[in-house]
Parts: sequence; structure tokens; C-alpha cells
Amino acid sequence: MPSDRLVLKFGGTSMGDLERIRRAARIVAAEARAGKQVAVVVSAMAGKTNELVAWTDGAGPAAAGLPLSDDEYDVVVASGEQVTAGLLALTLRNMGLNARSWMGWQIPILTDDAHGRARIEDVPGEVLGAAMDAGEIAVVPGFQGVTRGGRITTLGRGGSDTSAVAVAAALNCPCDIYTDVDGVYTTDPRIESRARKLNRVSYEEMLEMASLGAKVLQTRSVELAMAKRVPVRVLSSFVEPDEDGYLPAGAGTLICDEEEIVEKRIVSGVTMSRDEARITLLGLSDRTDAPADVFTRLAEASVNVDMIVQSQARTEGTVNLTFTTGRRDASRAAELMRTHQTAIGFEEIRVDEDVAKVSVVGVGMRSHAGVAQTMFRALADKGVKFQAISTSEIKISVLIDAAYAELAVRALHAAYGLDGV
Amino acid sequence: MPSDRLVLKFGGTSMGDLERIRRAARIVAAEARAGKQVAVVVSAMAGKTNELVAWTDGAGPAAAGLPLSDDEYDVVVASGEQVTAGLLALTLRNMGLNARSWMGWQIPILTDDAHGRARIEDVPGEVLGAAMDAGEIAVVPGFQGVTRGGRITTLGRGGSDTSAVAVAAALNCPCDIYTDVDGVYTTDPRIESRARKLNRVSYEEMLEMASLGAKVLQTRSVELAMAKRVPVRVLSSFVEPDEDGYLPAGAGTLICDEEEIVEKRIVSGVTMSRDEARITLLGLSDRTDAPADVFTRLAEASVNVDMIVQSQARTEGTVNLTFTTGRRDASRAAELMRTHQTAIGFEEIRVDEDVAKVSVVGVGMRSHAGVAQTMFRALADKGVKFQAISTSEIKISVLIDAAYAELAVRALHAAYGLDGV
Repeated sequence: MPSDRLVLKFGGTSMGDLERIRRAARIVAAEARAGKQVAVVVSAMAGKTNELVAWTDGAGPAAAGLPLSDDEYDVVVASGEQVTAGLLALTLRNMGLNARSWMGWQIPILTDDAHGRARIEDVPGEVLGAAMDAGEIAVVPGFQGVTRGGRITTLGRGGSDTSAVAVAAALNCPCDIYTDVDGVYTTDPRIESRARKLNRVSYEEMLEMASLGAKVLQTRSVELAMAKRVPVRVLSSFVEPDEDGYLPAGAGTLICDEEEIVEKRIVSGVTMSRDEARITLLGLSDRTDAPADVFTRLAEASVNVDMIVQSQARTEGTVNLTFTTGRRDASRAAELMRTHQTAIGFEEIRVDEDVAKVSVVGVGMRSHAGVAQTMFRALADKGVKFQAISTSEIKISVLIDAAYAELAVRALHAAYGLDGV
Repeated sequence: MPSDRLVLKFGGTSMGDLERIRRAARIVAAEARAGKQVAVVVSAMAGKTNELVAWTDGAGPAAAGLPLSDDEYDVVVASGEQVTAGLLALTLRNMGLNARSWMGWQIPILTDDAHGRARIEDVPGEVLGAAMDAGEIAVVPGFQGVTRGGRITTLGRGGSDTSAVAVAAALNCPCDIYTDVDGVYTTDPRIESRARKLNRVSYEEMLEMASLGAKVLQTRSVELAMAKRVPVRVLSSFVEPDEDGYLPAGAGTLICDEEEIVEKRIVSGVTMSRDEARITLLGLSDRTDAPADVFTRLAEASVNVDMIVQSQARTEGTVNLTFTTGRRDASRAAELMRTHQTAIGFEEIRVDEDVAKVSVVGVGMRSHAGVAQTMFRALADKGVKFQAISTSEIKISVLIDAAYAELAVRALHAAYGLDGV
């Protein structure tokens, strides 16, 4: 991997006004003057995407029977990043640097045609790389792409992180993501003041943490970084660079291969998400295909199910089936169940949004026994009951009463020895 | 010219908010339901382009020795029309119509690479026409184009009118321009309340009137309409359409070939412009090449000179040379003269911005004698002295003291029989 190229990504807060754009430009300039070939991926000004989305909402959805309007939604919403890309290029030139912007359709950042939530399919790096070889800083609007048919697409919320990683993969170089936090923490410092910044975290851990509620990076961007082996560093754009534009040594968190992490930990982080809902079907028929019927219907309606618990019901010949979904899918899922209540065969449905999912994540779990016991003991010591559990090779999640969420996070943070001194 | 296609153009006021966009959409829908194949060209929301330009100004000009930043200016500023094009397409779909937006680079609207003031070179109409043949309303952002090298350009202020005419030429159809006035008037109704709306005006007259200060249409758009013989109608988007979306009969002004105008007039309009400055070089050498020296230097600095008067000076062997420029070029022109004062050879320079140009325009002048006398007598009757004159086949302009501008407009409007009853 050539060390002379680097992708920098700045989020909406870092692009919030001209003064902040100048601050970002100083960071870019320092990297360029240090001999790096730099590509910069930018978000829209903070708040701008919301404004554009509100306008598209006001313009209204497509009338029945006509093609979905998401393609025009993308035309409107993609404009926010076009503006900041042009402004950053202008600012860099004003500082004496050679820069130009590259729209998604100019590179091109090729995506599928799932407008509003498109996935990047290919980013040819040749033209961009040649311009950088010729001494030009490339400024790329994040979040946007183009279909093979030449229509503008957007990648969905947080998509600029994914754009940055995709450009880095195309250029075969690392990616520094400047955001409003100074790295990845063992847990949310707003919940536990003893949270510590991690110097390094593995792709696998970061992926779990992103999925489980850590909002530092979009999950898809971590997946892509892991698949393409792009080293990603998360940094704060509010750390004051010195007069040459350099940041303090050791800033941020590097997301990298597990092998590159020297300090071994059993658990790297504790996450918490309130974006959960619990749905219980009481008195479900104990036909062996009943749960399959439920989950097939949910899958067909694109409702993702996370945890599943089946327990004995009071009524003979029936069970209770509990599952969790994302909160925004809960009412749709419940409606779907009610519509097909007879076909599925259950007595009653209950929906509870007053729940939280607390998780511990760490690659060290693979080789350590007793991780789960530590968790259950720590929760029991605080009187926290759990309603469901799910595990993977490197994480354990429990669903608990939302009122206990912060308490549980702090208890687990201490129990796994993550508290800073 | 197939009568089943039509280009509609809406300016920034008509795109000012979602409610106004819906009003524009109702006009589009009425034309579509009346059987027209419609393409719509839109400006950015009123005020938006100014905001974007202010941001580019804040980001600063390019540092010395680097390429001009106008290409990135265009990236930023072109985004305003992208937003309204997407929003109008969404709104039309919401009304049950089939519509999609076409960016400048998608059609493509090919321009030269004079960023910030690009000229349209070619608009292939095949793809757009095919989509319209297939029943789709095409929504096109005005003001923007793309170079053959694939970079975004803008056409300069008022460029959306030119976009609309160019699209109409490509589609071989007429163009209705919806704006905040209800047509072309014999003079500015804010100056002379007896001004009348013209039902028809020739390309040549409209071109002179646009150049001479009538702000209804951008000059370039009229040139293009004349060259391509595109019938252009100017209409108010604030006339309330009836419930089917139809406008009152006889609305607006049609700009067309002279032959299509039945009602013959000697003078069609009186215009006034304060965007003038008068520069006088006193005691200029009477060398025969001295004026050529002056005007060559001005031309090389891209200063357009309008009127020129040379008169005898007091000093033997010298003349006084007076010329007019656009007001925004005046200080630059004066500076240029001062820098080369010795080489050119003159004693003193005077700059007067307190002047106005009043003009009468009409194709009838070609075949009528006495038009100039009427003008001079009308001005003399009111005690208005003129400082310079310029004429073309179909217009006479005089430069006068700015204080007399409105008085002169009203006097000429009456003298040529233009006052409404």
C-alpha cells in the first residue's frame, strides 16, 4: 500500500461554515505539504441535508402507480455535498494549493439504482489517481454516486463515511475520518466519564460496535473497510492543529486488522442502543412451522429481527414468542402480525418500546471463557434483569428495561476493567 | 415546427418556495393535460444563487499563479437549480404526472469552458425528445451546462432564459417564459403609468430593448431566440390560472419575427438605463491614431465602449474625447487611462457616473423619416440637453443628466404616441 496517498473525510460539523471549512483546509494543506497525495471526501454543511430532505417531503411522494420518487429525492439531496466540495476546493486554492472537485458522476462512484440507499459497486481509481499524481488535491462530495444509467444516487444517512472508505480502497491508501469526537471510546463518555479512548480497534470489533449503537461510523463503511482492508483512523476535527497544521501525536483511533493490535483485551467496548422494540406473541400455536411463518412474513416486509426468545405459555399447546426489531420498524411489524393473526395463530400481541440493548464487544472473547458469566454477575449485582440475549463470536447483547440502561453500561464497563484511572 | 411540444421556463421568484413550485406545477400540468409535450426549465429559488455566490466569495479567489477558480464557483452555484429541478419533478409526480429531471451534464447542455459566463455550444435534443415522446415531462435546471471535458459550467446571471431558449431550439418548439412581470411594456410602468403591454414585439426590437435596460429577458437569450427563430412568450407566473390551470387569453407578450406583427408602429418602446458612466479625456493629442490608441487599450482590457463623441478642445492641437462604458467598468477604464496617460497623451480625465441613457426602439424607424427630430424636439421642449447620441437602424439613444431620466422617458413615451388611453 503506497504510503504517499491519503484520503481525509470531513463530516457536516467540520463543513458547517466557511470558518470551519478553512480549518479543514488547513489540515488538508498540512498533509499535502508533508508530501502526501490527498483526496478529501466531504459531507454537506451540518443541517443542510435535513433542510433538503424537508423540501422533498414537502414536495410530496409520488402519486400511486408512478415510479418511486427516490431518484428525484437524490437529485435534490445530493446537492448539499456538491456545494461543500466546491467551497473546499476554492478555499484550498486560496491557500495556494492546487485542488479540484470531482462529482460522483465524474469519477464515477458507480452504485446500484436503489435510490436513497444505494450501494457502491465500483470506484475506478485511475483518473482520480492520475490527477493526484499530477499534484492536484482531489475534493470529492461524499454521500453521492451515479448509476450505470447516469442518474444521481445517494447512499443513505452517514453515507459519506462509506464514500471515503470506497475512495481510499480505489486509491489503495488509508483513510482519516475527521468527526466531532476524538476517537472510538470504550463506551459513551456521556454515560461513563471513566470511558477511555482506544488507540486501536479491530475491524470486527468496530463493526459490532457500530451495529450495536456506537455512532462514530456508519456500519456499511466499516464493512467496506474490513472487506478492502483499508486502515481507517477516526479523529476530531476540533483538536487544534499546531501552526503547521499538525495534530498531536497519537490522536484518534486506528481501525485495523486484529493482528496489528498489540495490547490484547478481552472486551474492547460496551455499547448501548435505545433503538429497539420488543414484540411478544402470546399463545402462539406450538406447530413447529409457526415461528418460521412469523419470521418469513417479517423478512418479506424487510423487518430485521435481532433477538428471539421462545418460552412456555400458560395455555396448553401454545408458546410465547418474543423478538426484537429496530424501533422504527416496530409498529409496521406489529401491524403485519395483527393482519395475519388468524393465519399465524396467536392469542395476543404486546409491543414494548421501553427497552434498551446493552452489549459488550471484544475479539478476546474468542479465546476466553467466563466472559458471559462476568456479564451476568455484574448485572445481577445491580439488580438488572435481562429479557433476551443474543451473542456472536465477539459480542454478547442483553435486552433490558430502558430505565436500567446507563446503570448497566457503567457496571459492565467496570466489570471488564475498562475504567480509566 | 411541431405544435405539440412546448418549453416552459420559471424564474427564481416562481420557484421561491414549495407553494410557488406547486403553482408552477399546476401551469405545467395544464399544458400537459392539454396534450402538450412539456419541458420545463427552472431557476434556483429566489435568493439562493446570491447565497451560494456569497459563500464562494467568502472562500476566496485563487491564489496567484494557480488556475482561475471559476470552475469551482460553477460547481457551487449550479447546485441551486439542481435543487429546484428535483423538487419540481417530485411535485409533478405528486400531482399524478410522469416527470424526471435532466441535469445539464445528462442532456448534455454543452458549453464552452468560460466558467461563470459560459456560452451554450450545442444541445442535442434527441434523448430529451425521446423521453418526452414517451410521455415524460422533462425538468431541466437552467443556468448550468457542462464542458466537453465534463466539468460543470454556469451561463452567467439571467442564464436560465438562455437555457430555456436553447432547449426549445433543440426540441424545435416555442418557449414560454414565466416571470414576475406580465409581458413586455412600451416602457417601465414604474416610471410611466400610461405604459402599455405589447402583444407582440420583434426579435430585433426586444434585443435592443434588452441591451438598453429593459430587464425582462437576458440579451443573450433574445439573440439565441432570433438566431434559431424560437417564438418566445413572456408571461407572469402570478396571473391566477383558472381551476384547470389555464391563463387568461392574450396573456403576455410574444417575441417573434417582424413579419408576424400586424400592428405596425414606428416606435415600440422607450428604455432607460442608469448603468452608464461617461469618461472624458480633455486635451487629447489630435494625432489621428490617438483615439485608436485609447480604444485599443480599452478593448484589450475587455471594457465595452458604447457612445463616442470627439469635440474641439481649448488648447491648440488637441481635442476632447468623450466615451461611455458600463458603470461597473468605469473605474477600471479610468485607471487604465491614467496609467498610460503619457503614452496616450492627454491633459486631464473626468469621470461622470451621474448620467442615464434614454433610448427609443422600433423597427418602424427603418422606413420612417423624422423619428430623430421627434425625439430631439420632445427633449428640447422639456429642457433636457443631451451629451452624446448613438443610433442603430432601429434605435436612437441619448446620454443625459441622470436627474432628467424619468422626465425624458415620459416625454418620449407621449411624443411617439405610446401613452395608453
